[in-house]
Amino acid sequence: MSDYGRAFALMRDRSADAWREYTRHAFVEGLKDGSLPREAFLHYLRQDYVFLVHFSRAWALAVVKAETHAEMLTAVGTVNALVAEEMQLHIRTCEAEGISEAELFATAERSENLAYTRYVLEAGYSGDLLDLLVALAPCVMGYGEIGARLATEATSDTYADWINTYAGDEYQGTCAAVGEMLDAAVIRRLGADFDTSPRWSRLCDRFRTATELEVSFWQMGLTP
Amino acid sequence: MSDYGRAFALMRDRSADAWREYTRHAFVEGLKDGSLPREAFLHYLRQDYVFLVHFSRAWALAVVKAETHAEMLTAVGTVNALVAEEMQLHIRTCEAEGISEAELFATAERSENLAYTRYVLEAGYSGDLLDLLVALAPCVMGYGEIGARLATEATSDTYADWINTYAGDEYQGTCAAVGEMLDAAVIRRLGADFDTSPRWSRLCDRFRTATELEVSFWQMGLTP
Amino acid sequence: MSDYGRAFALMRDRSADAWREYTRHAFVEGLKDGSLPREAFLHYLRQDYVFLVHFSRAWALAVVKAETHAEMLTAVGTVNALVAEEMQLHIRTCEAEGISEAELFATAERSENLAYTRYVLEAGYSGDLLDLLVALAPCVMGYGEIGARLATEATSDTYADWINTYAGDEYQGTCAAVGEMLDAAVIRRLGADFDTSPRWSRLCDRFRTATELEVSFWQMGLTP
Amino acid sequence: MSDYGRAFALMRDRSADAWREYTRHAFVEGLKDGSLPREAFLHYLRQDYVFLVHFSRAWALAVVKAETHAEMLTAVGTVNALVAEEMQLHIRTCEAEGISEAELFATAERSENLAYTRYVLEAGYSGDLLDLLVALAPCVMGYGEIGARLATEATSDTYADWINTYAGDEYQGTCAAVGEMLDAAVIRRLGADFDTSPRWSRLCDRFRTATELEVSFWQMGLTP
Repeated sequence: MSDYGRAFALMRDRSADAWREYTRHAFVEGLKDGSLPREAFLHYLRQDYVFLVHFSRAWALAVVKAETHAEMLTAVGTVNALVAEEMQLHIRTCEAEGISEAELFATAERSENLAYTRYVLEAGYSGDLLDLLVALAPCVMGYGEIGARLATEATSDTYADWINTYAGDEYQGTCAAVGEMLDAAVIRRLGADFDTSPRWSRLCDRFRTATELEVSFWQMGLTP
Repeated sequence: MSDYGRAFALMRDRSADAWREYTRHAFVEGLKDGSLPREAFLHYLRQDYVFLVHFSRAWALAVVKAETHAEMLTAVGTVNALVAEEMQLHIRTCEAEGISEAELFATAERSENLAYTRYVLEAGYSGDLLDLLVALAPCVMGYGEIGARLATEATSDTYADWINTYAGDEYQGTCAAVGEMLDAAVIRRLGADFDTSPRWSRLCDRFRTATELEVSFWQMGLTP
Repeated sequence: MSDYGRAFALMRDRSADAWREYTRHAFVEGLKDGSLPREAFLHYLRQDYVFLVHFSRAWALAVVKAETHAEMLTAVGTVNALVAEEMQLHIRTCEAEGISEAELFATAERSENLAYTRYVLEAGYSGDLLDLLVALAPCVMGYGEIGARLATEATSDTYADWINTYAGDEYQGTCAAVGEMLDAAVIRRLGADFDTSPRWSRLCDRFRTATELEVSFWQMGLTP
Repeated sequence: MSDYGRAFALMRDRSADAWREYTRHAFVEGLKDGSLPREAFLHYLRQDYVFLVHFSRAWALAVVKAETHAEMLTAVGTVNALVAEEMQLHIRTCEAEGISEAELFATAERSENLAYTRYVLEAGYSGDLLDLLVALAPCVMGYGEIGARLATEATSDTYADWINTYAGDEYQGTCAAVGEMLDAAVIRRLGADFDTSPRWSRLCDRFRTATELEVSFWQMGLTP
């Protein structure tokens, strides 16, 4: 399994059931064996574009909430990766499928989509950088794990582009950087024995809620 | 129909279909004729308590975002009404039904509940007072309209306490005060012809989204 | 010395020099012996009114950032005390001196005033409840200590009204409640040994900065 | 005079006296003729580094508050320009003068510095994107105007590096882009006749306050 740091591994283990439901969801398995209907994939991709807009805003909020030069640099780098690369990938993929940029931008946001991003943003606004990071982590690292697994397990080329994006060095590098940032941020605020801090179990709860909202997002993907 | 101000009336008319779905929802009709199962009502009440916690926080955010003495006073008054009265009502009603305060506080938040309050709070944090108020309005005024209608149309006493709370002078007074505050806030920021401002249709969209999230909340109430 | 809790006492000791400069400032000593020019006092009172508007907003932000029922109740109570009592006192005192409410509301904010409240609000927005509370504490508790001391040491009746307000049971009760809230909030987030947490010294730095901004505020009071 | 858009030009004219005090400050004239003591310049540069950290955070907040793709892209671009270029310039310039990165990072923030950035950040958090942009504009465009003027008027090479940075195509391009963004943001929210909107004079007041805080910043620069 990929190594995205100690804090992430501990939180994932605390939410093992929800994490499995998320990373082994029927939508994911459909990407793996190519059985996912194209219509569902394009529906997902359009919703994911709207998601990325708000997700980029949430990472920009991490820049605002950063307390160190290193935290600021990692967060700025992630905003750039999202806005300059991942969002452009969605625009290109949709265009190749005959969905124009204007049409993509006009996608009506589904409530499962809205629930997730607003949860993350509100966690960030109301709490500190840790509250924000643990709500962001399931998306960043979950896609990293799914991409890495599907790169070796996929039995179809249908969704190879998607899989390669998240299995690729660039995205895996982002996951590793975010994992390091999370470990450092947790140690800076809660100490080296952070999992004994009274905040730790509440942060793990946030991580679990965000993971459950990812499950709902895949589920929405299956019902265009 | 109750008069909660001009801005509210205009926004309600722009979302007439969603507004009808919300204020005439099966859950509401079940309160009217007493056919709503007690289990569904208590499930709703517990979720509504969690909702009120975050809704109070959103009204406190309105105090932070207020620009005038009058805006500040109305928002402070609403926070007090929510924390000192409405939340206490839920605590008492639940206790009368054998649900302790500890049990009530420990209610697991459903995703339809979370979606609504985080949408409102994020709208408030990311926008200005208007973005916040138009997201708050469907809840405040919708319950006012429902209460007022059910007070004359109800065919059963089963949910008379609930109906009387929202039909009562105190709650209706809150709706009127919030309606006045909204009108003044809109005029202060967009001018007397506020419905010709470019922001107006986006504010109406926010109002519609919040109304749709209210529909989901009732729907959740039916499925304990 | 007044007992406003353990966290406050520890922070005050870490900023002993700045704390002394603040609570024994020439402005304060002028209130004690009545030597403070009336013009300076009224100038201070008008600036303090503007200060209270933003300070109330900061306490409303504490409601938004609260994580427990108890935290929410104390913060709501403090907003009420500020808006319903302390701000009214300033309005009345100014009116008695021939300064109308309209004139009071129109007071141009001095930069030393602005610096303090924006520092507090930004600390609250960017951090969590702890960052906010430790920035609010020097004002709340400092006035409590000054009031209590001057009630026994004052050699003139000139500023008795001001002294009695802050020495009175009501204000002292607020200080005690805020002290309890701060202790509980710190323990909830950093643990019982909170002063060994890596965040502790940064929180103490915030407390010191806020204390220094209080010194500047008194200094501004001396120069109408 | 440089053209940074219509909204900026209107606001600058409304604050003509403060704008002149800021852009023709003794500190600026000292950069022009080389009479500014090196000690003052280095003191300013270190404070300006701390300023840039918070200013970058404020621009990241503009990403969070953006409502359109174009707004998001301009804000992300500005964050990058600040973090990847302007902050690096300060690090390099300081290193060349024997001030290490560690020493630079440890600079104690002066209250005139703190007042400005917290004012900007709080304006952004409490208001919408417009409140934030008009508080950011005096810094961005003021340095652009000063740089452009000094590039033609300078009578000494002593501060040529500083002057060329702000007179250069890259920085002037940022000013033009921010000016376009501001015009579009104002029209989107207030309409084409934005200067007749009731919000306009309050936005101009924010611009003035931020300009006055720039004056204080130069003043602080003169007193290491």
